[in-house]
Parts: sequence; structure tokens; C-alpha cells
Amino acid sequence: MSTPTLIAATPQPPYYAVIFTSTRTEGDRGYGEMSRRMVELGSRYDGFLGIESARGADGLGITVSYWRDEAAILRWKQDEEHQKAQQAGQQTWYANYQVRIAKVERAYGK
Amino acid sequence: MSTPTLIAATPQPPYYAVIFTSTRTEGDRGYGEMSRRMVELGSRYDGFLGIESARGADGLGITVSYWRDEAAILRWKQDEEHQKAQQAGQQTWYANYQVRIAKVERAYGK
Repeated sequence: MSTPTLIAATPQPPYYAVIFTSTRTEGDRGYGEMSRRMVELGSRYDGFLGIESARGADGLGITVSYWRDEAAILRWKQDEEHQKAQQAGQQTWYANYQVRIAKVERAYGK
Repeated sequence: MSTPTLIAATPQPPYYAVIFTSTRTEGDRGYGEMSRRMVELGSRYDGFLGIESARGADGLGITVSYWRDEAAILRWKQDEEHQKAQQAGQQTWYANYQVRIAKVERAYGK
């Protein structure tokens, strides 16, 4: 079954990607609700271009959000509700995580 | 349970990321074996820094491979066995996919 809408419809490069890779601690403890809320809130920010997210059976999660420029990424990072979620993520939800900010230079696909 | 080894131990930026997002067609048809083989083969290339991969229950798959520079990415793209896998991917395994080549400028985590 094709699920094309899961792949973000980003514009022609250049634009930015925030690659967020994580492993979870055990139990939900509000994570699912926070996760949905952050997608809803972040996608309203000026400069948001799209988001792709997957968590595999082995526990590794990868979320890539796409942004027009670094200024848009910074504004979202500083959002008050997002800041609280970041703190809870560090303290409670994530065993390990890595955030990588990258400039998309080329893109192709079908 | 913590699974820290799933997150790639990349060096300090700058380096490159190839963000490969896909939705599959139905059935395996050799995909699983090819997928494992490509990770094994690609990781032997000079300039390979690591790989992270997840496919969620909704069917979206995200694989991010990390590379020292664009030249290393190009050499791997042109590998003969990889070229055949790319063709089979386009024709058989993937309903939709997007490849984004991005320069990682900053990174942090725990």
C-alpha cells in the first residue's frame, strides 16, 4: 500500500533539516501526547516546511523536521512550551538522543 | 531499556548526511537481504561515518547515513552493486522515496 503523504513535500533546496535521533526510556509517561502536541505546535511556526518520523521495533526513533532557514529553527527551539518538552525529554523520556542541524543542498526522488 | 549503540557515533561537524525517506511496496521480494547487504557494503567505504535506520508501523522508513564529505557519498552512489540495488529500489521495492543530501553544521545530545 502506498503512503506517499508520509514523505514531506519540501521545496527545492537549499533549506534546513533537523535530524533528531533517539532511544526511549521505558513507559509512556506523557510522551505520546507531548509528541503529538509538539508536531501540532511546531508546524504552525513560520518557516516550517514538513516533518517525517519513524520509530522501529528495535527502539530507535528518527524524526526529521524541515525548515526554511536557521532563524526559523531557533525561534521554534526557543518556544516556551517546546522548551519544557525539551527539558522533560532530557530528564525523563529519552535514554539517549542526538540532534543534528544540517543544510539540505540537493534532493531527488519519486 | 537503553539502546545507545543504535545512535551513530559521529565526529564533530562538519560532515554530510544522506537522509533517505521511503514507503515500501507490498511484500519483501528480496528487500530485507538487499538492505542488510547494502549496510554491510556501504560501511566499508572510505569516508563512511555511521548509519541510523527506522521504519515505523505506518510504513514510513527513514535511513540516515553519515559521510565525511560529498566525494565519499558519490563513490558509494556509483558502487556497482549499489547501482543495481538503486534500480531495483526504484522499480520494485519503493512506492515513494526522497533522498536529501545535507551538510551537518551543528550537533548535540546525550
